Amino acid sequence: MDRQKALGIVKEQLTEHRYIHTCGVMETAIRLARQYGADEKKAETAAIFHDYAKFRDKNEMKQIIESEGLSKDLLEYNSELWHAPVGALLVEREANIRDTEVLNAIRFHTSGCENMSTLDKVIYLADYIEPGRHFPGVEEVRELAEESLDKAIIKALQNTIMFLMKKNQAIYPDTFRFYNNLVLEQRR
Amino acid sequence: MDRQKALGIVKEQLTEHRYIHTCGVMETAIRLARQYGADEKKAETAAIFHDYAKFRDKNEMKQIIESEGLSKDLLEYNSELWHAPVGALLVEREANIRDTEVLNAIRFHTSGCENMSTLDKVIYLADYIEPGRHFPGVEEVRELAEESLDKAIIKALQNTIMFLMKKNQAIYPDTFRFYNNLVLEQRR
Repeated sequence: MDRQKALGIVKEQLTEHRYIHTCGVMETAIRLARQYGADEKKAETAAIFHDYAKFRDKNEMKQIIESEGLSKDLLEYNSELWHAPVGALLVEREANIRDTEVLNAIRFHTSGCENMSTLDKVIYLADYIEPGRHFPGVEEVRELAEESLDKAIIKALQNTIMFLMKKNQAIYPDTFRFYNNLVLEQRR
Repeated sequence: MDRQKALGIVKEQLTEHRYIHTCGVMETAIRLARQYGADEKKAETAAIFHDYAKFRDKNEMKQIIESEGLSKDLLEYNSELWHAPVGALLVEREANIRDTEVLNAIRFHTSGCENMSTLDKVIYLADYIEPGRHFPGVEEVRELAEESLDKAIIKALQNTIMFLMKKNQAIYPDTFRFYNNLVLEQRR
């Protein structure tokens, strides 16, 4: 899909702040895709649509998770996770995006999963380090992103897991699996 | 089994330092069992034997894991985990302990697992807070242990997971399942 058309579609779904974030993710994702050998056009599309469902009503998302057979354990964990799999489903239906690689990158951009493709990783990391992000530890992850996609994501996951644990929150199992998979890969 | 006989058996398997630790775990486990309603005699036996295999040769433990059908993914993770399931198996064979509740408490005392019994939790926590333990955060866990078995273990697990992540190590899946299970239980 043409970039301007895609941006026009998501702009209607997002606050201005979130739209600016989306543009930052898009620029970062294209750069990371080029650097780490993912498809730049798919990275652009996945980045533009990654937060498509961010502002959907929680009850609507819950109902979609239940009625569409999405993993029910999502409902046990933080509702911040829901917009990613729900978004993948709505982007397919409402924006007519059919590319499963793009849809998976949207689906896994918050939780991660055990076996992430390079495109999935690019979107995950771009969402974390885009220039509008300002939180403790982000600069270190940006620096790691210059040398290694996986090492940068390991650090981002460590930050995220520690942040959640400090708030006594559960860690979605796919997030731990993603972390373990990357760490164990580094040792091989 | 009689306490002195049991202590005599494990003393032969352990260094002096580890034997003193074992006595600390025993005293703490009996106290926690009384406080939280687990069987005190089973807690005593499980505590005495919990580190039975601690000093077995790594290759011997690896071979036991492979030949006895223990979870093969253990071999992918830190070898510090191995002595617990291997210990449960050897305690049954070599010390003739047949009580499955005691054997499970030994089996899960390092990794944890998703659904831990009260006895399992007592041994897990006693191993963490016995008086010989000195490391950052242990005092906070000791204080939490006065009011809630689960809250104390959540804090111990957070400390352990953060410690492993700071060393870029993987987190054994049963450990994060144990953590998630306790945290989600707190919310119910």
